[in-house]
Amino acid sequence: MEKTLDFWFEYASPYSYPAAMRVEQLAEQAGVNVRWRVFLLGAVFQQYGWKTTPNELFPAKGNYMWHDMQRICASLNLPYQRPSTFPRNGMLAARISANYAESEWIGDFIRAVYTANFAHDQDIGNSELIANILDKLGQDSAQIIAEANSDEGKQKLKQQTQQALQQDVFGAPFMMVGNEPFWGNDRLEQAIYFAAHGKLPASVILA
Amino acid sequence: MEKTLDFWFEYASPYSYPAAMRVEQLAEQAGVNVRWRVFLLGAVFQQYGWKTTPNELFPAKGNYMWHDMQRICASLNLPYQRPSTFPRNGMLAARISANYAESEWIGDFIRAVYTANFAHDQDIGNSELIANILDKLGQDSAQIIAEANSDEGKQKLKQQTQQALQQDVFGAPFMMVGNEPFWGNDRLEQAIYFAAHGKLPASVILA
Repeated sequence: MEKTLDFWFEYASPYSYPAAMRVEQLAEQAGVNVRWRVFLLGAVFQQYGWKTTPNELFPAKGNYMWHDMQRICASLNLPYQRPSTFPRNGMLAARISANYAESEWIGDFIRAVYTANFAHDQDIGNSELIANILDKLGQDSAQIIAEANSDEGKQKLKQQTQQALQQDVFGAPFMMVGNEPFWGNDRLEQAIYFAAHGKLPASVILA
Repeated sequence: MEKTLDFWFEYASPYSYPAAMRVEQLAEQAGVNVRWRVFLLGAVFQQYGWKTTPNELFPAKGNYMWHDMQRICASLNLPYQRPSTFPRNGMLAARISANYAESEWIGDFIRAVYTANFAHDQDIGNSELIANILDKLGQDSAQIIAEANSDEGKQKLKQQTQQALQQDVFGAPFMMVGNEPFWGNDRLEQAIYFAAHGKLPASVILA
């Protein structure tokens, strides 16, 4: 049986950044295949009756998160700059990610969008920025953006978000290995270990 | 300078169980001193306008947490049984923990209370159960319970809970190393590493 990990992510989610940057490399080392599964976390928050992100609703938690992002990225040698606008509009990037999830360039695209937002403080809601990323990857940006913004392209992201809700994906990043759920960047290594070995690790060694 | 970690915990918090059971042993191996810091998480939830635990407010998250508790405890070889009543009333245990935080038996007391609730499905709100735990530890249970329930004893827990809020301790377990905050059982090893080395680990090895 092929070892597969579904990586559920949302572009506005800060903790999805360090996880998205690392998941393919860590999974490859463990012989695990990654499926990129974008969704809209706002659909989950709506179920809770939240009209904004929990980082605004719960200030102590939000402050902790931004501090944590900085130290996590530093410890991983990931470039990081706190976005001057938060959350940014990741709708176009999400539509593209849902419609081209099987394309060989999708991992590079996703990492480039996260890097623009969380390392370079750029507006990923700007379609020109998204087009530039696609062009640099040698893709036909005009066609891809038109397809992503078509009725069918929009529908694809909506369906995938519904699937996330049905699978109780309540946060991001969220890893599913078969029916086994793992929530958060903190659990990325563990989820990959589980995909590779079919069980949780017994010990954690930090170095 | 002595290396010290403040371990903030709440008796009703499931994830505090695996963390409380492990923190002293892991800290000792790393040459770090643990200060037991109990508080009432309800005071945080009141700030959010929540009248019950987030596990009831957000069912998908609650279901994940109980599943996660089971697999985490199994992987750590910790006995675990999902409490048939949740949350249980940990007020007396918390008052004792606040008032006797410096006593040499306090770690054993705290672990015994957590084990009663999360391994043996016992009612930790029952003062006889608490008295039995103290008696087994060779302590004068009648005197300790009377002091914990005195006006002064109650006040001590209230003050410590206020201190938690002032330090933005918004969940449990919560580790503070100086001003550096770490939230959750997932971050226990990292917090101890930080207390020992003054920096975060660069890599995580699971085995």
